[in-house]
Amino acid sequence: MNHIELVNVGTELLLGAVTNTHQAWLGRHLAELGYPVQRQLCVGDDAAAIGQALREALARADAVIVTGGLGPTADDLTRQAVAELLDRPLREDPLVRQHIEQIFRARGRPMPAGARVQALVPLGATVLPNLHGSAPGLAMSVDGDSFGAPGQTRLLILLPGPPRELHPMFQNEVVPLLLDRLPQAEGVACRTLKSTGLSESVVEERLAEPLAPFVELGLEIGYCARPGEVDVRLLCRGEEATAVVRQAEQLVRARLGKHIFGADDDLLETVIVRLLTARKQTLALAESCTGGLIAHRLTNVPGASAVFLCGLVTYGYHSKEYFLGVRAETLATHGAVSEATAREMAEGARQRSAADFALAVTGIAGPTGGSRAKPVGTVYLALATAWDTSVVHRFNPYDRETFKYVTSQQALELLRQTLLNE
Amino acid sequence: MNHIELVNVGTELLLGAVTNTHQAWLGRHLAELGYPVQRQLCVGDDAAAIGQALREALARADAVIVTGGLGPTADDLTRQAVAELLDRPLREDPLVRQHIEQIFRARGRPMPAGARVQALVPLGATVLPNLHGSAPGLAMSVDGDSFGAPGQTRLLILLPGPPRELHPMFQNEVVPLLLDRLPQAEGVACRTLKSTGLSESVVEERLAEPLAPFVELGLEIGYCARPGEVDVRLLCRGEEATAVVRQAEQLVRARLGKHIFGADDDLLETVIVRLLTARKQTLALAESCTGGLIAHRLTNVPGASAVFLCGLVTYGYHSKEYFLGVRAETLATHGAVSEATAREMAEGARQRSAADFALAVTGIAGPTGGSRAKPVGTVYLALATAWDTSVVHRFNPYDRETFKYVTSQQALELLRQTLLNE
Repeated sequence: MNHIELVNVGTELLLGAVTNTHQAWLGRHLAELGYPVQRQLCVGDDAAAIGQALREALARADAVIVTGGLGPTADDLTRQAVAELLDRPLREDPLVRQHIEQIFRARGRPMPAGARVQALVPLGATVLPNLHGSAPGLAMSVDGDSFGAPGQTRLLILLPGPPRELHPMFQNEVVPLLLDRLPQAEGVACRTLKSTGLSESVVEERLAEPLAPFVELGLEIGYCARPGEVDVRLLCRGEEATAVVRQAEQLVRARLGKHIFGADDDLLETVIVRLLTARKQTLALAESCTGGLIAHRLTNVPGASAVFLCGLVTYGYHSKEYFLGVRAETLATHGAVSEATAREMAEGARQRSAADFALAVTGIAGPTGGSRAKPVGTVYLALATAWDTSVVHRFNPYDRETFKYVTSQQALELLRQTLLNE
Repeated sequence: MNHIELVNVGTELLLGAVTNTHQAWLGRHLAELGYPVQRQLCVGDDAAAIGQALREALARADAVIVTGGLGPTADDLTRQAVAELLDRPLREDPLVRQHIEQIFRARGRPMPAGARVQALVPLGATVLPNLHGSAPGLAMSVDGDSFGAPGQTRLLILLPGPPRELHPMFQNEVVPLLLDRLPQAEGVACRTLKSTGLSESVVEERLAEPLAPFVELGLEIGYCARPGEVDVRLLCRGEEATAVVRQAEQLVRARLGKHIFGADDDLLETVIVRLLTARKQTLALAESCTGGLIAHRLTNVPGASAVFLCGLVTYGYHSKEYFLGVRAETLATHGAVSEATAREMAEGARQRSAADFALAVTGIAGPTGGSRAKPVGTVYLALATAWDTSVVHRFNPYDRETFKYVTSQQALELLRQTLLNE
């Protein structure tokens, strides 16, 4: 199997000022291509540390992917560290320079002198065009002799740090390069099935025994519990990998049934937009405690405007009455966090927006605002349809952001189950 | 300075099934204590890889903190790998075993045989109690002789993977241990200033020259560009660290002026909630292209309900007219993405919610929906106040999620500048 290592450069990552999302994003995409990452290392913006990290990685790995440190400022040192480590002079690439000048022209700003450093390319490196920023990626073959791997060639790939530049560059440039340069001697198959509504231990209890025969055939099972979601990862290597993973997937689907909402890159919001689009149906939202998160998740999905009509984030009493028509009497009698209010919110949103479905949530996100009768974490979810309105009660005693996410997950799942049963 | 390394164990991290949040969380907390992490490494659930990673880290670092691989299942291998590497036998700790048995009793479940492995402790290790789970943390002094560091002692700390177990254990157990065992010979000072509205190159251009004298005094400057934000990190070590960072901060604030919106953990939404709370003023939102993200960001802030009244996510024409009172004529003449519509959205939201301020955004998030006159990325932001309504035009030609985030940042910043000038 090919050995892949990832090196993330950035003092901001070590100091925790920024979360390292590259590791997860690249890790997932590389695994899906059959190149699971074997080791990930993070060093700061320090030329000596970058050089040392690359020296170690190039001694072991067939391919080393580096993120960050290619920008225009003085603490962007990856390019120089690589040039020094490999003893390759840096030369200005005229096409890259033109590209950078163009970017500044398009923005109507003068190009600062410092930006020019991004056009420097180590001798023999291939430029990976950057469609969404100034610093290009760089790819080069490295002779393993200097790294204790005589006779072997390593692939070294440098990518810019900003995700919106790195992601398309990876898809457009790095994927073809890897497939061309690192042919896969053996198969790798990986499939992640995503479930909601069951705890991790229940998922494992339902799957461990029936999957045991596949484990003997080389299947590796991973369980991952996330807020409002449990993922089951099926990974297999070898000639039979695809068949083993396919059969294991069928078994997982049979065992977890309607709790499986998707696979691999699917998100619950993507599935909802897909289902509604296929049925030409529309949705409105009335959110209190989730504060707009459900609307945000749905509108992240390209094409959501075809099915999502509107969302009303009604935090106070006045806005629940004014925009949704919740009765003052209901609020006075039952309170804002109640089955009755959730019902009127959903029905009001559906009626006023003329949507086919309306979801409503009201609850206590905390950290304050709870009481003995309605502790922090209490939530009511309502779904209004053409034929009825259903309300469910949930208890999500988590920190504020987890509460919002888990509640949004439960609301979307309430709609998904209704769409499936329709 | 003390050298700290972090080792994260978990195949799910390498495969990207889970984002490594431990790195950022521990990195931030350790840096604040004056122990900035020098290197972070991630390996899979593989005893040989764990052993090799620890061997390398113990050769360099005064303290090595390991996360993950302490649980009860077959892929939890950290405890065994450490026992083998250090040649220390594992023995069952009766108190830990009692703790684990108690947890299962409290849940009314029989204790599976596999759970007992979590009570095994390498000879000479200190148990770090786990208040929120079964596997305890472990801390031990390691003789540097076997790791190419003769005469030196290393501190090795093993922590459980689940964040809700790791976080309190770090605060309660690890912090006192570090302060006791790794006294700080010299000071460390770190400050991150957060700006919006300027590009990374412009920020550096304004700061590089005037900060040069501080660099000679040992100041390390880091620039970090994020969507709609550029962070400037000032780090210094040594006796004068605090004074150097304080003076450098004053200079950065003078040079970037009103573009600085906060420091360290501040988020723009936190700053907005703080400003409005102090003035006892309220806010309403009318979001089209940001799809609820601004409401979501604001409602992530505890206490937002005191200042945030409501958000109207009006995606279609109907909801802009019905909920906000945008005139059909305006939409027909100027279109939904226009200065006139943005203005009427903000004014409608303000009037109907009775808020002091209303922000409105309308634009084209893409990937489709653009035209030659109004390409993808076009956006209008409006702010309605008691005295007038201002509208600004922006162009954010990014992918959908970055577009939403940058636009939400610009909208919040429009409000912040108005609040500051009031």
